[in-house]
Amino acid sequence: MTSPETVDHITSLIQEGEFFKLKKLLRTFQPAELVELIEDEDEREQLIIFRLLPLILATEVFEYLDLEVQRHFLDNLAQDKITDILNEMSPDDRTALLEFLPANFVAELVQNLSEPERRVTLQLLGYPEYSVGRLMTPDYIAIRENWTIQQSLDHVRQHGGQSETLNVLYVTDARGVLIDDIRIREFLLANPATRVRDIMDHRFVQLTVDQDQEEAIDIFRRNDRVALPVVSADQGILLGIVTLDDILAIREEEDTEDIQKFGGSEALDEPYITTPLLRLVQKRAGWLVVLFLGELLTASAMQFFEGELQKAIVLVQFIPLIISSGGNSGSQATSLIIRAMALGEFTLGEWWRVLRRELAGGLMLGVILGIVGFSRIAIWQSISPIYGPHWLLVALTVGVALVGIVLWGSIAGSMLPLILRKLGLDPATSSAPFVATLVDVTGLIIYFTVALVMLRGTLL
Amino acid sequence: MTSPETVDHITSLIQEGEFFKLKKLLRTFQPAELVELIEDEDEREQLIIFRLLPLILATEVFEYLDLEVQRHFLDNLAQDKITDILNEMSPDDRTALLEFLPANFVAELVQNLSEPERRVTLQLLGYPEYSVGRLMTPDYIAIRENWTIQQSLDHVRQHGGQSETLNVLYVTDARGVLIDDIRIREFLLANPATRVRDIMDHRFVQLTVDQDQEEAIDIFRRNDRVALPVVSADQGILLGIVTLDDILAIREEEDTEDIQKFGGSEALDEPYITTPLLRLVQKRAGWLVVLFLGELLTASAMQFFEGELQKAIVLVQFIPLIISSGGNSGSQATSLIIRAMALGEFTLGEWWRVLRRELAGGLMLGVILGIVGFSRIAIWQSISPIYGPHWLLVALTVGVALVGIVLWGSIAGSMLPLILRKLGLDPATSSAPFVATLVDVTGLIIYFTVALVMLRGTLL
Repeated sequence: MTSPETVDHITSLIQEGEFFKLKKLLRTFQPAELVELIEDEDEREQLIIFRLLPLILATEVFEYLDLEVQRHFLDNLAQDKITDILNEMSPDDRTALLEFLPANFVAELVQNLSEPERRVTLQLLGYPEYSVGRLMTPDYIAIRENWTIQQSLDHVRQHGGQSETLNVLYVTDARGVLIDDIRIREFLLANPATRVRDIMDHRFVQLTVDQDQEEAIDIFRRNDRVALPVVSADQGILLGIVTLDDILAIREEEDTEDIQKFGGSEALDEPYITTPLLRLVQKRAGWLVVLFLGELLTASAMQFFEGELQKAIVLVQFIPLIISSGGNSGSQATSLIIRAMALGEFTLGEWWRVLRRELAGGLMLGVILGIVGFSRIAIWQSISPIYGPHWLLVALTVGVALVGIVLWGSIAGSMLPLILRKLGLDPATSSAPFVATLVDVTGLIIYFTVALVMLRGTLL
Repeated sequence: MTSPETVDHITSLIQEGEFFKLKKLLRTFQPAELVELIEDEDEREQLIIFRLLPLILATEVFEYLDLEVQRHFLDNLAQDKITDILNEMSPDDRTALLEFLPANFVAELVQNLSEPERRVTLQLLGYPEYSVGRLMTPDYIAIRENWTIQQSLDHVRQHGGQSETLNVLYVTDARGVLIDDIRIREFLLANPATRVRDIMDHRFVQLTVDQDQEEAIDIFRRNDRVALPVVSADQGILLGIVTLDDILAIREEEDTEDIQKFGGSEALDEPYITTPLLRLVQKRAGWLVVLFLGELLTASAMQFFEGELQKAIVLVQFIPLIISSGGNSGSQATSLIIRAMALGEFTLGEWWRVLRRELAGGLMLGVILGIVGFSRIAIWQSISPIYGPHWLLVALTVGVALVGIVLWGSIAGSMLPLILRKLGLDPATSSAPFVATLVDVTGLIIYFTVALVMLRGTLL
């Protein structure tokens, strides 16, 4: 891809004012390389490079730039260049950009679009956020079933220039209702005199315009298509298509949100490295304070058992060990379940299957850690008798508490995402820190209860 | 999609032995629906449904089934049906399946393939694991630059039947070196008498056969293509193409691995719900024990400060609170950084940009939590004087320790993935539990050191 040398060479061409040479050089790059190049340059150089690109290439590059950079360009380019680019952009990318800009800025930009582009943009902006309608582009090719293959290909040749993808043609009836989709390969492989109806199989997958984008991601995942048709919810009239690249961008965004939430902060909505520091702190402080307030309950729990603590101070040193084991097993369980749910591996109704697995698995993991914990105390004790005469009871207390806490962590961590989903919330909210905090508080109670039972009459 | 009623209906057709009716019904489904259907049924029903599908549909469905289900089918279908299906499968999917099976089973299956399919499969199996060569399919269409558009389209009509995707045609020279890729839309839109050379732009993106699959994912991400050509490393000779669907499957797998590792277990390599329980425990126990052994250091740290603990038992009750705050801020930082790295938002060389952000951000977050912690103690004390005459010093100790620990958590959590990457390890290994454990041990030391300084001469 673009090497540091290339970037340096371009920077020096700009400094020397060799714009004609630069213009020729830029035309030898791929759009993806130009995007990289521009994002590697400083703001002033970015604008110069971009101004030197021919319109078609500029539009293609513009569509791939970060929304932040796009906005910077819009603020600084001449109005006619902006209008040209917006007119050339595919309607779905244009909609994504306009949604990102302040409303008054949008109103002005839409004003400057050519009449047909304005109509399309306003139409797309009319669908609810996160609906399929926002993603669709009306640039597709519709054909009729009584046409021949040759007629269809001629039609494509005349009208296909505007279409975002020509990989699939759509067959509609007289009312505009979608009745089939046919991959372009069928047209290329068929005899030109064949009728469209003869290569139709009436099997097609469609999205509806008011459907949730997440559902659309799922449908794309299960059907190997580069584009899917979008129809009206009531009559099945073909309104547009959604292409895979837009779906992929959304999927990547959702995965990012999942991971960020899972780490215990709000989703950033923009790249980490360009998020302003104060916004970054703001996105993280909320959850951190909530978790802190939850964790304050551990102080209350410890206060409740203060008498026991003073009598058996030896118990104190295992507190971090024990509660963190619960948090770790909970964090494992919750991450496995969140991902399995995101991939649709099981339904909410199968919660008992998950519970059964975690009951058995958590018990086994608990026994493993319990044995390790018990052995640690026994071995240390045999080296130097620091745990006193009741060391065996202490070791047993730690071992049994570990079994209970790891089991509880696995159950809590696995059931929490399911409960959140059931409540209509995002399962990814069940973050590793959230589960750890939940298990910390209850883990202390388990530990001290086990201690009360095991050490009564000796240490307590 | 497939409703529970449909599943019930099909199950009852099977029970009644109405196979002819069932066969007709099955042909009305989409491949994706059939996959769902089959995966919802029990093993016996799965086989019956699958046997009733016509070959082409069966192959398409087979390619989408889980590797586990595919293997179950291979174990139970008649040899000739298996061979038919394997012959019809696209070479890349076939390679994925064969890699999953035991070696002797593979040898037998490959033996039964038709001569050309066997050649292709053995060739694909020859490239190193995780290389682009393993993903590529040799079914593409190559044309020559002196052909006309019409000649090219005729060529497609005659030879395109085998090609996995016809969205792009590849131009090669006399030696087979790739010199351009042209989207099929250009052919559809151009005058049939035009020469291929006249619509060539000599700009194309290619993969090399020994390239890492992760790099290929990255190149697909930056270039909006449904397929990319694969060339030999030395001479640039066109060997095959890689299609987007295979790249997406790998990307999804990698994201799953990242999330699972981040939760603190090994990657499962198969769906959570079908992983055998013992393997699930095995994948989780390793890290859990390692983390537990690390966490044992907290017990050692506490033992080291045992004298202080006995003198100021009030300090004990804030231990879980303080160390978990460090773990939480660390987990936030590490998840943000791991995802930003996966998306290529910054390079390793920019570590100081990350460090600067986390220094400033961690300090702010620490001050926020410090103030909350201080206030909690002050308010409780004003209600009932449980913290004794030195409550102000205790509150200050907790507040200052929180600032230090949250700052340290942010730094450790953000730098750890960078260090792991630098060492050539997977940054996702820097899981939330890993960071929490690291910060727990050091957090205790920070807490007690602050206490020693603040409380010397009073409580200590």
